[in-house]
Amino acid sequence: MAVTVALDGRGAERGPQAVIAAARAAAADGIGLRVFGDGEVLAEIGDLEGAELVPTEEEITNSDEPVAAVRSRPEASVVRAASDVAEGRSDALVSAGPTGATMTAALFALRRMQGVRRPALALQLPVPGRAGRPLLLLDVGANTEARAVDLVQFAYLGSAFSAAVLGVEDPRVALLSVGEEQSKGSAEVVEANSRLADAPGIEFLGNVEGRDLMGETADIVVTDGFTGNVVLKTIEGTAKAVADAVREAARSGARAAVGGTLLRPALGALRRQLDPDTTGGAILLGLRGVAVVGHGSSGAEGIANAVRLAARAVEERAVDRTAELLEDSGMTRGVMRDRKVS
Amino acid sequence: MAVTVALDGRGAERGPQAVIAAARAAAADGIGLRVFGDGEVLAEIGDLEGAELVPTEEEITNSDEPVAAVRSRPEASVVRAASDVAEGRSDALVSAGPTGATMTAALFALRRMQGVRRPALALQLPVPGRAGRPLLLLDVGANTEARAVDLVQFAYLGSAFSAAVLGVEDPRVALLSVGEEQSKGSAEVVEANSRLADAPGIEFLGNVEGRDLMGETADIVVTDGFTGNVVLKTIEGTAKAVADAVREAARSGARAAVGGTLLRPALGALRRQLDPDTTGGAILLGLRGVAVVGHGSSGAEGIANAVRLAARAVEERAVDRTAELLEDSGMTRGVMRDRKVS
Repeated sequence: MAVTVALDGRGAERGPQAVIAAARAAAADGIGLRVFGDGEVLAEIGDLEGAELVPTEEEITNSDEPVAAVRSRPEASVVRAASDVAEGRSDALVSAGPTGATMTAALFALRRMQGVRRPALALQLPVPGRAGRPLLLLDVGANTEARAVDLVQFAYLGSAFSAAVLGVEDPRVALLSVGEEQSKGSAEVVEANSRLADAPGIEFLGNVEGRDLMGETADIVVTDGFTGNVVLKTIEGTAKAVADAVREAARSGARAAVGGTLLRPALGALRRQLDPDTTGGAILLGLRGVAVVGHGSSGAEGIANAVRLAARAVEERAVDRTAELLEDSGMTRGVMRDRKVS
Repeated sequence: MAVTVALDGRGAERGPQAVIAAARAAAADGIGLRVFGDGEVLAEIGDLEGAELVPTEEEITNSDEPVAAVRSRPEASVVRAASDVAEGRSDALVSAGPTGATMTAALFALRRMQGVRRPALALQLPVPGRAGRPLLLLDVGANTEARAVDLVQFAYLGSAFSAAVLGVEDPRVALLSVGEEQSKGSAEVVEANSRLADAPGIEFLGNVEGRDLMGETADIVVTDGFTGNVVLKTIEGTAKAVADAVREAARSGARAAVGGTLLRPALGALRRQLDPDTTGGAILLGLRGVAVVGHGSSGAEGIANAVRLAARAVEERAVDRTAELLEDSGMTRGVMRDRKVS
């Protein structure tokens, strides 16, 4: 049976045309859609085979405080879409709107898995090289702070997702820190390192530094949501700055211009590797359902890839498999409880 | 009168030959040197005009615990070099050895300025563009955690250094966070944002995200030492990965190879901009003296630039000018005390 995705059609940075184009692409892939948004602006979507348009009047924007807005606006498109999943009419939530509101709506409607203290936002990094092997970073922004126990849980959430949805066999986990030695980093990171070394079911490589983040070794890099968000955006900003500087260099004279022209096709693949829209959005792990937040500029391709990622997570039973891994590791029996007195 | 730099000649990643070449380059610039290290291996330095070799037998390596090692080895080259500054025989400390040991030796020998809770390690970022305007990031690793009051102090330390040594007029400060809005980030970052908005003598721009770190607006970016260290290394790793991928693309066929060759001279300037050795080392701000840690691979050019940076900081009276700014802002009178009960 086809997967049905509840898509929040409001709040996309590139506007409703990007949502319409994304819906068309996803529907062409055979993914069922229920799109929540402006009935007039998105009317075209109602004509797509396998897609249904559900008009909603309210919206939550980037300037709203997410928790208050989600609580007070049950008719907002993202809240309606999240409820649609909770009530079983759709299988997964996707939004290209504000991240905070999407995470809040998903958390309220889909609820945390047993044993999970804090859900984490995970994203496949747009990095060059790695011969097609995906690199997953989490948390990229669900929590601004993380205790050691949270970092350990993120390792489980990332491992289950990487194996189930990204197809990585025995994924290897690294912990982001300021040095490779076990003693380097904040107190929480040092404690997480020692816990991860003993964590059943986790293939733990130890600490990794920012410099080696996109090296060949780790499949999953674990960090708190503040550092992860800053790092993710730093990678995107740096890649863009360097790519821009290369382009600038190719305009610096006739000789260089010819060189740039000859090199252009070979650089096209690199540009696609670095494009945040190709990675398909960030997935909120640790919930009893699938929720994906569009990443990048949320153009048509980015939103379509977010929908595809959500559909794959449903097809691959990502939620059940994560619950199984948590169960096997003893996390749901309280083994992973925070050691500290709060 | 010429500046004399106390240079720790041990522990450079590229070995003693890099130290000798750096000493030669710095001496040629008219900088006085007292070099502490292996008397036999570094013997050549004794023959340089304006340079003196001070043989020391002990060493502190990356695998030593910094505080214990500095306390127990008064004859270690970095400890001797730091004491040389404290006792007035040299004007500044430079080391290409382990960062932790250098910071500890500097802190013990040179002591904190009045009113400064925690010194911070500041580094000029190797980023493309910006038309030659320096971008200073701090803290890049002196402290793994930072309270709001520390982040505010880093803004003062960075502003004074940027104006005095980097020649930036009215330097503008940004706070690294996960969103531009004042409410975004960890509790300490949110509090730092509100304090910086009212901080006398600070030109505060608000929050900046990882994506915009190397944009055109801020001259100084303030963050805690964990995030700063990860970000710094992420920038270096990403720039290298993208540059490598461009080089790889230029090998992907005959047409691309010709393109790469034609483009090479134009890319040389970019390569120099991205080379960590060109930025001249990280300076430990907030002490009653000048201390610089070599950055990058600490090749000859990196060490020589670290010595030049230290000499410039002495010539420009960076320490006195920092103390004046702190005094004017009221920080030394306790105005900047931590508001929280510890």
